[in-house]
Amino acid sequence: MTVLQRETGRRVLFREIRANGPVARIDLAARSGLSRATVTGLTADLLRAGLIEEVARDGGDAAPARGRPRVDLKIRGAARLVAGLRIGTDSLSLVLLDFGGARLAELEQPMTGEALTAEALAKRIAAALETLAQRAGRAVGEISGLGVAVAGVVDAVRGLVHWSPSLTGRNVEFAQILADHLGMPAFVDNDANLVALAESLFGLARGRSDFLVVTIESGVGLGLFIGGRPYRGTRGCGAEFGHVKVELDGAPCRCGQRGCLEAYVADYALAREAAALPAGAIPGAMDDPATAVLAAARDGNRAARRILDRAGQVFAMGLANLVNLFDPSLIILAGERMPLDHLYDDPVLERMQALTTRTDRPPPEIRVHKWGDLMWARGAGAFALDEVANIALAALDGTA
Amino acid sequence: MTVLQRETGRRVLFREIRANGPVARIDLAARSGLSRATVTGLTADLLRAGLIEEVARDGGDAAPARGRPRVDLKIRGAARLVAGLRIGTDSLSLVLLDFGGARLAELEQPMTGEALTAEALAKRIAAALETLAQRAGRAVGEISGLGVAVAGVVDAVRGLVHWSPSLTGRNVEFAQILADHLGMPAFVDNDANLVALAESLFGLARGRSDFLVVTIESGVGLGLFIGGRPYRGTRGCGAEFGHVKVELDGAPCRCGQRGCLEAYVADYALAREAAALPAGAIPGAMDDPATAVLAAARDGNRAARRILDRAGQVFAMGLANLVNLFDPSLIILAGERMPLDHLYDDPVLERMQALTTRTDRPPPEIRVHKWGDLMWARGAGAFALDEVANIALAALDGTA
Repeated sequence: MTVLQRETGRRVLFREIRANGPVARIDLAARSGLSRATVTGLTADLLRAGLIEEVARDGGDAAPARGRPRVDLKIRGAARLVAGLRIGTDSLSLVLLDFGGARLAELEQPMTGEALTAEALAKRIAAALETLAQRAGRAVGEISGLGVAVAGVVDAVRGLVHWSPSLTGRNVEFAQILADHLGMPAFVDNDANLVALAESLFGLARGRSDFLVVTIESGVGLGLFIGGRPYRGTRGCGAEFGHVKVELDGAPCRCGQRGCLEAYVADYALAREAAALPAGAIPGAMDDPATAVLAAARDGNRAARRILDRAGQVFAMGLANLVNLFDPSLIILAGERMPLDHLYDDPVLERMQALTTRTDRPPPEIRVHKWGDLMWARGAGAFALDEVANIALAALDGTA
Repeated sequence: MTVLQRETGRRVLFREIRANGPVARIDLAARSGLSRATVTGLTADLLRAGLIEEVARDGGDAAPARGRPRVDLKIRGAARLVAGLRIGTDSLSLVLLDFGGARLAELEQPMTGEALTAEALAKRIAAALETLAQRAGRAVGEISGLGVAVAGVVDAVRGLVHWSPSLTGRNVEFAQILADHLGMPAFVDNDANLVALAESLFGLARGRSDFLVVTIESGVGLGLFIGGRPYRGTRGCGAEFGHVKVELDGAPCRCGQRGCLEAYVADYALAREAAALPAGAIPGAMDDPATAVLAAARDGNRAARRILDRAGQVFAMGLANLVNLFDPSLIILAGERMPLDHLYDDPVLERMQALTTRTDRPPPEIRVHKWGDLMWARGAGAFALDEVANIALAALDGTA
């Protein structure tokens, strides 16, 4: 075998073990198409490096009368420690994971919602990591890498944040700045992409190779999985669903353009619509207009109801366009708390079906997944696990 | 090596030889990551099966003083014969290709533009194939497979046409019906997908793994390449760009829905706009309104110019949305004759750039490729080459 074949083979086996472990060598051979001898050789490399470990098969046969006891292979949790961070509009959420993905500690800290410089944010994150490590009785220096989920337009390959509501600058080399401040590699991606990764590893999309996740909070995000991998476009920043245009020269968006989907469905869109109504049409709209619209609609206020109906119609149109373009088998509508859950109402989903191109085949499955900030952080942690594993596997060939 | 490894290895090498041949074994080893011994063994299988052949390296060194002369490997053109067919609105276009992709004959036959039953269309195609084969001095029975490009919503994996302007029925098992009538396997795909395949093999996208092709004739199509392969969605019918919705409850489309992109930019959209104007506003609009609008706009007629401007604005918005979602490095705007070439004017492309999310990175490259019906047929032929090669390679393992 060439070095490249060995390296590729180890990656394939490591992924299989992560996805399906504990798993027997013979099953790894069947799943990977590699010969049993090759599997034995390559997993020996992984065992020697301490990245995986053998475990007695639980629930299986007793030790056979002759020969070695049956063992499976699994990721060795103690091999590495990684952290996942979600930078939300009003909080930092962190998880500490072992190499097997088990949660060792978690932490949530409030944020003011203001954009910060990358350096100021890095300082906040360094302090939060200290607290997180302490909670698990570990030191920050033991952490092998940090995955970071941030809203905005992110080039994940280069760790570059083109724009984010959390950062004051544009085109910030955020991964590099974090690595310099924290003394560990940092991996930055758009938060919706990392929700998709989390859904694929821990959530509703396990075993699905092609699906999409639409996230809704104050903005709208999209995470795409194509062929079993996150799809990030050719410049690392695809899938800008929130800024897809739904009306020619339409409503102004906070991104500076007009007619974006977000400009019709986000909380600031509701506030804009409420401001256009006569004073008093929606009670409390002067103070916190978006919340007032949501509350008034729940109380049966017609003007508020019309605002939400229109937002739902535009959202349905956006979702239908995703179905027309990507033809996914599964769409997950995800978000923390989901104040905008009128967007997930049955009439919206029915309208979406009506707007997709008819093929007389079943429409994609749609599932709603309400989760908290910590699930976003867990997605970021999964990204770090993947990247730290790649570093560990690449290092093997120097020694093998 | 396992059977699976041999099979995968042969496929990888065959693809490399197709893409880069004539090519030396040592270069195949470098490109594929397979060892030289493995390359020698697997290419021997392909040589024995007559799928590839050795050729003396042209332009290289003279035969070395000692040892065998240097040889490269290439696809053996005589190995198989395939045909490609494009079913257009007003013509059938066919090409006959050898296994290396060389054109042996071509044929274009007029069609009435009316939808036909699958059986009636199959009879027309059978007759056209006879003529095509005769032109090359071959028999239809020698053809190993037919690739078919058709407009509409197609499940390429199952050869099922959900809907097409060329067919009277819905959900037609078109590949099976053609195979039954023609006595050869048929492979049916959406025409825009096959244009993308042709661009990747013969056209402007050689060596690109992620790009998209937008086709414009009477309708609008999209072919997507992601990760070096056509992207067809999970049900085989993704990328319905023409029926992406650009306006809530907008203009009626011939697909039966409202607000589709096609309903603003296609020829029937121009006709609808012209019909809404006062009589005489556009000369000749009573007879052939779309052509009249295009001619009047060229002559400086303001009303006609406004109709085209609006179509261009909507088209720019649709293109910008594709860039926002897919982040491609290359967009090819392709079509035969392209009567609607106002859609490719600079103002439209500038507007598109203005509507994409700003990342301070270079925008995708945009290239316009005007080609004739025969290039569409060649894309269909490339599809047949791919599928016939898969059949030939799969058959090898019974004998190896």
